Amino acid sequence: MASLERDPAQSFTVGVDFGTLSGRALVVRISDGRELASAVYDYPDGVIDSRLPGTADPLPGDWALQNPADWVGVLRHAVPAAVRASGIDAADVVAIATDFTACTVLPTDRAGTPLCAKAELRARPHAWPKLWRHHAAQGQADRINALAHERKEPWIGRYGGRISSEWEFAKALQVLEEDRTVYDATERWIEAADWIVWQLTGSESRNACTAGYKGIFQGGQYPSADYLAALHPDFADFPATRLAHPLSNLGDAAGRLTAQAADWTGLPAGIVVAVGNVDAHVSAPAAQAVESGQLLAVMGTSTCHVMSADILAEVPGMCGVVEGGIIAGKYGYEAGQSGVGDIFAWWVDNNVPDAYRAEAERRGQSVHAYLTELAAQDPIGAHGLVALDWHSGNRSVLVDHRLSGLVVGLTLATRPEEVYRALLESTAFGTRRIIEAFTDSGVPVDEFVVIGGLLKNEFLMQLYADVIGRPLSIALSSQGPALGSAIHAAVAVGAYPDVPTAARSMGKLHKHAYLPDPRRQAAYDDLYAEYLRLHDYFGRPEDDGGNAVMHRLRDLRDRANSAGIDR
Amino acid sequence: MASLERDPAQSFTVGVDFGTLSGRALVVRISDGRELASAVYDYPDGVIDSRLPGTADPLPGDWALQNPADWVGVLRHAVPAAVRASGIDAADVVAIATDFTACTVLPTDRAGTPLCAKAELRARPHAWPKLWRHHAAQGQADRINALAHERKEPWIGRYGGRISSEWEFAKALQVLEEDRTVYDATERWIEAADWIVWQLTGSESRNACTAGYKGIFQGGQYPSADYLAALHPDFADFPATRLAHPLSNLGDAAGRLTAQAADWTGLPAGIVVAVGNVDAHVSAPAAQAVESGQLLAVMGTSTCHVMSADILAEVPGMCGVVEGGIIAGKYGYEAGQSGVGDIFAWWVDNNVPDAYRAEAERRGQSVHAYLTELAAQDPIGAHGLVALDWHSGNRSVLVDHRLSGLVVGLTLATRPEEVYRALLESTAFGTRRIIEAFTDSGVPVDEFVVIGGLLKNEFLMQLYADVIGRPLSIALSSQGPALGSAIHAAVAVGAYPDVPTAARSMGKLHKHAYLPDPRRQAAYDDLYAEYLRLHDYFGRPEDDGGNAVMHRLRDLRDRANSAGIDR
Repeated sequence: MASLERDPAQSFTVGVDFGTLSGRALVVRISDGRELASAVYDYPDGVIDSRLPGTADPLPGDWALQNPADWVGVLRHAVPAAVRASGIDAADVVAIATDFTACTVLPTDRAGTPLCAKAELRARPHAWPKLWRHHAAQGQADRINALAHERKEPWIGRYGGRISSEWEFAKALQVLEEDRTVYDATERWIEAADWIVWQLTGSESRNACTAGYKGIFQGGQYPSADYLAALHPDFADFPATRLAHPLSNLGDAAGRLTAQAADWTGLPAGIVVAVGNVDAHVSAPAAQAVESGQLLAVMGTSTCHVMSADILAEVPGMCGVVEGGIIAGKYGYEAGQSGVGDIFAWWVDNNVPDAYRAEAERRGQSVHAYLTELAAQDPIGAHGLVALDWHSGNRSVLVDHRLSGLVVGLTLATRPEEVYRALLESTAFGTRRIIEAFTDSGVPVDEFVVIGGLLKNEFLMQLYADVIGRPLSIALSSQGPALGSAIHAAVAVGAYPDVPTAARSMGKLHKHAYLPDPRRQAAYDDLYAEYLRLHDYFGRPEDDGGNAVMHRLRDLRDRANSAGIDR
Repeated sequence: MASLERDPAQSFTVGVDFGTLSGRALVVRISDGRELASAVYDYPDGVIDSRLPGTADPLPGDWALQNPADWVGVLRHAVPAAVRASGIDAADVVAIATDFTACTVLPTDRAGTPLCAKAELRARPHAWPKLWRHHAAQGQADRINALAHERKEPWIGRYGGRISSEWEFAKALQVLEEDRTVYDATERWIEAADWIVWQLTGSESRNACTAGYKGIFQGGQYPSADYLAALHPDFADFPATRLAHPLSNLGDAAGRLTAQAADWTGLPAGIVVAVGNVDAHVSAPAAQAVESGQLLAVMGTSTCHVMSADILAEVPGMCGVVEGGIIAGKYGYEAGQSGVGDIFAWWVDNNVPDAYRAEAERRGQSVHAYLTELAAQDPIGAHGLVALDWHSGNRSVLVDHRLSGLVVGLTLATRPEEVYRALLESTAFGTRRIIEAFTDSGVPVDEFVVIGGLLKNEFLMQLYADVIGRPLSIALSSQGPALGSAIHAAVAVGAYPDVPTAARSMGKLHKHAYLPDPRRQAAYDDLYAEYLRLHDYFGRPEDDGGNAVMHRLRDLRDRANSAGIDR
């Protein structure tokens, strides 16, 4: 760890958060975490899901790519803009850190040059970075999982029994099987989280977080050559040839800013660059959620749950448990809900009549706020509804993206705000189910910490506290990931001995902002019991008392859309 | 049966259809069923469900009453208006017939004077006619059913195992238990269908249809005094004292028009008045659906199914089977779906955003037509949805009004027209389930005949034909009940030997307007299989593998609304 030789009150770090559609740079004071200024850069190519830039050929369904040049654009535009807006002298910036969506992963050559930047490969879709939400490797993921269970691979339990199609191995195997030319040209298969650090430092590094959560690195090793050979003979050496590199702890320095990167960012060459990180995980110190038992929920369109603990356990349906995956020295757990805010948005966009919009406008409220206000007037259970929050599938605890949403209890008197409330409640029930998976596995959850856009809905926050029966704290920074990165940068440069210590000075939390009310909690218990029963019925396999109707409806849908004759 | 001594081409009958909010009179030529003119009279008091006319006291929930004076208003206003509009000489009207909603029932004295018309009783709610949709006698119905099953009463199987709270005995028992004064003053307990005929002829008559379907008259008798005494000691003599009267066959003459009624209607005194009838059942000859195997569906806000057959069977979940209940000499079966058109209307009114309304308006279409057009563009199953059509409960085959609606398969890509189509489909699946209950019980269904407002949706009609796998015919009269009454009047006056013969001349049917397409039929089979499985899961009792979540949600709703503290 580097050491800081300056006054922290006059020293600053820059945190850079790479999202799905844009990147944001934030300038933060080291002594107290004060956020001085930020700037955003929208990716010109955004999410590439219809055709490659400069070509007319359509991409297959479920594909989602990105352009690495867009990421460099964030370094070149957002970082200097944020520093300028902050009014500080760039010379007072002592470190920079980044966080990224994950698993967003790309093939490069030995020097880190993306294959899609090479003229001879750029027309091949597999040469481009696969965005986290690229879902075209499901077939590969299915085989990875089936084989792992068949062979009783020790690591499969660390991922709730299921490797996602979004992750490194499924995506890489798809390249191998669908574009041998690109696979053979792939000298490094690297997370964007690490690739961006490579652009800053000039040398490769790999962080413990993505290697563990997305790269199946467990107990000091990747999956065995034996196992991989059984998937595809030429996949046996994949980790050894394309992944292997020493891993770095979160909060460590990865290297020093190169002259090239100093030129891009306007920051002093030679300042410390922290090890790469993931947007959700890096947020934990921003919300002071770094202690065991503090479950951090990053609540936006979807929800990502991260929590550190002193013990190692296999929690059903968790996305993963990784040593040092969030905070060095602790086991980091991750879980998630695939759809939360985007379910509410879907309802508002598609199923709310004009009269509501007009009234919301008259009141100067968003439709969300107006529906919430209407829904909040009814006693618990008065809508007579229960919903399943699976409109985007279920990540935890069922790990099944082919599930879908459900509403039961509809009558001719059911109003849009009642369904809206049932959808709000369903996501809280989904969270409670996840918490119970943790506690049933011996991993305690004492406090629920919320960060992200949804915390501004106070009714929703109280609802969550009542449903989960735990105190709910809310982060005070609206830029959690970027602040979290800035905190990691401060640790990397030696301003604090470790991330938890830095979090106490630089993170911001309204502790126990909402407390559960015992009577409301009891009332929600009745609805949760119904949710749980439907959850099991529609989520369990057929041979375990379940009804796979959601799978079959999806198959029918896909068949109808591909055959598409009979109307 | 009377005989006709005039030229049928210059002779006319008047059919009068008494609905929930208005009554309609129709003038019809006997020779060919030509509809010359009609007129409507809106009931001034409509449905009395908030307070009695002239009082301020609120009625309890679930109550629904009517004012008999409003019905007489139809005779006084709509009948003469229709005759005037037809341009015929009133002297050429040779008979009149009526049909009514059922079970709409009222207490009268021996002379047929409604108790609510008596000054000393008019302030008592129980003195007023109870409209079919009066639902406040559920407690009585529950006891009627429990006791019938306990005692293995032979008639209970004729009603699908369940007597409705809407019917004569439940409503009468409610009067006995809640207002002894009114019950003791009740000398006759009579269907409005028969009461209106009493007003026309001056003497009491009772029709076989309502006695059988609504009055538990089976095998020549009402429920036994023993059974009734076990419900309430003073109920034992209820049929003997308040119902008993010879029953008349449908299509028979009940009597002759009195001078008083001639004065009201402008029709010649002494013309034939046919026996009373029920709106759905009377429609069968209007649609030429009088043969065995022709299932007539009266499709509007809800659907009523009526069918005649030569054999007697107990069909699970049917509303009833009555000898001569539709056509004299055949067994008449009735079944129903509580919600059909009103489910579609609920969706359009509550869950369709403005952009759809605007586009429908631009095209000069109704929102229903526009949604249908959009939905019809997708291949079968492409929405990935299945719905249960229980937003108003389930009449047949589950006979459970505490069930509710469900939609499964929702995703963030689900559009309002897709849910709309799933709702259309769910009602077709509900119909198929009913047809299967008939065929499984040995009662064949060869043709599906539709009458009512929904037949104008051609996509819906083709969908029904494909789902049920049978030819679908549509009635050509838009005034089925009134035409059906006019046909019964023609038979009562002897112009035709029987109703089926009259139907051939006076009814109007587009035979086999829609034929099932085998490929579409197969595609819908897959969705129906999912519907059926959900139907059983949510519809069956808990001890038979079901999930009573819909009952529990309704209980929670009712409790929340009555206690209503915790928000």
